[in-house]
Amino acid sequence: MDDAALLMRLAALNTAYASVIDTNRLEEWPDFFTEDGFYRITSASNHARGMQAGIVYADSRDMLHDRVFALRRANIYEAQTYRHVVGMPQVLGRDADGVIRAEAPFLVVRTMRDGTMSLFAAGRYLDRLVEREGRLLFAAREAICDSPNFDTLLAIPL
Amino acid sequence: MDDAALLMRLAALNTAYASVIDTNRLEEWPDFFTEDGFYRITSASNHARGMQAGIVYADSRDMLHDRVFALRRANIYEAQTYRHVVGMPQVLGRDADGVIRAEAPFLVVRTMRDGTMSLFAAGRYLDRLVEREGRLLFAAREAICDSPNFDTLLAIPL
Amino acid sequence: MDDAALLMRLAALNTAYASVIDTNRLEEWPDFFTEDGFYRITSASNHARGMQAGIVYADSRDMLHDRVFALRRANIYEAQTYRHVVGMPQVLGRDADGVIRAEAPFLVVRTMRDGTMSLFAAGRYLDRLVEREGRLLFAAREAICDSPNFDTLLAIPL
Repeated sequence: MDDAALLMRLAALNTAYASVIDTNRLEEWPDFFTEDGFYRITSASNHARGMQAGIVYADSRDMLHDRVFALRRANIYEAQTYRHVVGMPQVLGRDADGVIRAEAPFLVVRTMRDGTMSLFAAGRYLDRLVEREGRLLFAAREAICDSPNFDTLLAIPL
Repeated sequence: MDDAALLMRLAALNTAYASVIDTNRLEEWPDFFTEDGFYRITSASNHARGMQAGIVYADSRDMLHDRVFALRRANIYEAQTYRHVVGMPQVLGRDADGVIRAEAPFLVVRTMRDGTMSLFAAGRYLDRLVEREGRLLFAAREAICDSPNFDTLLAIPL
Repeated sequence: MDDAALLMRLAALNTAYASVIDTNRLEEWPDFFTEDGFYRITSASNHARGMQAGIVYADSRDMLHDRVFALRRANIYEAQTYRHVVGMPQVLGRDADGVIRAEAPFLVVRTMRDGTMSLFAAGRYLDRLVEREGRLLFAAREAICDSPNFDTLLAIPL
């Protein structure tokens, strides 16, 4: 697979990923990860200091399913909508074990039920991807937000 | 045409489409549609309820030309500028008659003459495309906005 | 090199360019330009009137290095972060001398140290690119902002 083809696959994956969040198909979100997939939302300053904690943290697909279940029970999605726009990704490298390391910038706009829009998050995804049965899956995805402040509703996936 | 090639064509089409709006070359906008092309701007909640009405509605290229004429007469573009950033599209499917169904997220920032910038719209395009003489044209484009509230100036194409 | 391949290279270049600014690797920024590369930040209205002046202006890679040095001395990056999202580029044409003319829309969000985010800039890049030893370099890059008002901190590259 050459570079341009890989970039297109990563870009398409990012679009599909954002689409399940933005169109309220959250139940499909964990399927973008490997079974022992790692996911966290953190801030650039926490990331730079190597801090392990994150606002949201999961290290398996099951934990992601649990989170979706909790979000559904809390009716979080009733009150607001998200819209991701993800820039073209960069391939940072490929490890010996076939893992692809990649990065992509993102902006997220939140729209409240009353129509109010606001910039909700800006940052970059830092990813480790593997190929399984012809599909790219996230072995790890970190959403690194530029802002250190997080809305208390940030339980919603980025 | 393979998937990656189609995605690139759709992405290029979305960029060209946004460019005629953002650089005030509105007269070229109807040419992105088929002669009986359908266009509307609606909200996610209207779309979800299957409501036919839209804030802006047209079902032919002639109606789009009429709209451009009206916008020019009202000097709408004298006072403001739009900037679309459209994310990588997704191909949703291909119908038996060759119609391509696709989707892409968008953000639009509006800049007033005094320099004030604001988030104007966030949402997604839902498209039906056909190939005519080597060009992709919109048989239908819906701009589905996340917010149910529309600025009264929304006569401007998204 | 066919059109789709060129578009992908331009998109990847724009991502890499934005990444050095957004992740505070400013020292790499001048390397995206030819030795006598031209760079300026201007407004759409100045650009339309053919005005030569820009908010930021440089006509060599050395001048860009000087600017980075000045920014470092002023500690501009201590207080804020930028996040570019650049849309898919358009190829506007190729000149007889091999120069590629291209354009791409951009949005930039600024995040202050206290976490406040704001729309910082919206506009488009207007570029002239050349190939040198297998790499695309900017012979000229203009960041044309939709807003005529510039923050006094705009010494930071767009």
